[in-house]
Amino acid sequence: MAFLTSGLVVKGGGCGKIAVSERRLVGGKPQWKAGRRAVVRCSEAAAKSAGAVPVQTGVYSTAGMKVEEFFRDSIGSWRSMRSSHNLAMSFMEEVNSEIEIENVELDDEAVLAICKQYETDPATAATAIKMSWEGTSDWDEDEVLEGSTLLVLVKDEEAKGRLLRSEGYAETVPAVGEWTMEADGTFVLITPYERASAEERIWFTTPNMRVRVSFIRTQTGEGVLTASMSTEIREL
Amino acid sequence: MAFLTSGLVVKGGGCGKIAVSERRLVGGKPQWKAGRRAVVRCSEAAAKSAGAVPVQTGVYSTAGMKVEEFFRDSIGSWRSMRSSHNLAMSFMEEVNSEIEIENVELDDEAVLAICKQYETDPATAATAIKMSWEGTSDWDEDEVLEGSTLLVLVKDEEAKGRLLRSEGYAETVPAVGEWTMEADGTFVLITPYERASAEERIWFTTPNMRVRVSFIRTQTGEGVLTASMSTEIREL
Repeated sequence: MAFLTSGLVVKGGGCGKIAVSERRLVGGKPQWKAGRRAVVRCSEAAAKSAGAVPVQTGVYSTAGMKVEEFFRDSIGSWRSMRSSHNLAMSFMEEVNSEIEIENVELDDEAVLAICKQYETDPATAATAIKMSWEGTSDWDEDEVLEGSTLLVLVKDEEAKGRLLRSEGYAETVPAVGEWTMEADGTFVLITPYERASAEERIWFTTPNMRVRVSFIRTQTGEGVLTASMSTEIREL
Repeated sequence: MAFLTSGLVVKGGGCGKIAVSERRLVGGKPQWKAGRRAVVRCSEAAAKSAGAVPVQTGVYSTAGMKVEEFFRDSIGSWRSMRSSHNLAMSFMEEVNSEIEIENVELDDEAVLAICKQYETDPATAATAIKMSWEGTSDWDEDEVLEGSTLLVLVKDEEAKGRLLRSEGYAETVPAVGEWTMEADGTFVLITPYERASAEERIWFTTPNMRVRVSFIRTQTGEGVLTASMSTEIREL
């Protein structure tokens, strides 16, 4: 089973990191040896839908991707795994969630309202999406975490602008982030909050997989408090 | 306690992600409410050394960093937290490790030997390091994972070249990767293996913190099997 073989390569593939012993997989079947903190959510459907997300032949590249393409390709249903590293306290948290991203028409009342709130000409809004999520954390698996937010992308330049958000996203207050679209196809978003700022880097690794790496920095950018990585697989 | 407040912002700071309820921290003291899978390794020393790694005033930027600087600044002792997402099986693994990176002189016998093995002129070697690690995985906390490897950086162009590795790194065979140094200061390394290829992106978020995001792709680059993020904090 090629995946498993590769999977084992993986474990040691990270620079300076660690080979995980093969006995965790026996005879190509997922007979997982789960450690104390390990949780295995393994189903055939998940393996099939997420295994090796097929793309066109050749290596996929997002170089030159425009922000409108990035948003358009983000529409859909995503299964997300997120790991957060709390750097001061040296602990990690895992969150599994389902994310739904829908297009919202630019003449939608909610879009007009948020533009008005930020004194932004609705004509400068390039696209808008509604994002909803529902997830569970390994800190408390019985607690269901859910919410939704409206995001309005405003282009101030071709690859640079603001992202307006309704409340209910990160904090319970609205927020405005500054985005740039990097040459390699990474969408970078910096959002200042009252006591910290959030930096997010999101990109497609295949057409059906997004990666999101986030940092929370101290207000002045001097230190990093938390880092997290989400892998998002499209539900096809 | 500003950190904690920010920490809470963090939790919801990831786009489409989840606010973790405040009751986990009571009165500014780390009275953690640990979930079933959560492990807290919290010490005052850790909090002090890792909290908000201080840098010069202003936001730190690695734009324009040269590969030699990247390697030079990587020398030292690092405490690493790594989260791996197995995308086919939908499970996560956490590894905590200590990483030691030492400079190795270019006329060192081991450097000359690996250059010879890859038929590379030692004069093209720009720098060499020895990396050692020792860690534990949440899959089996009693198992100590350790190893070391020699990395020789060969510059074919100013921001592009090969990385020669001794055995004992990812697989038990030597490997050659292709690296590029991106304009934003990200060191990108692609290493082909027999059945897969590894893509690593490493950058400094502060002078004393590196982030390493890795993907294992199928041989043809068509799919992603595993993604991981390591946060590495310098031990000062």
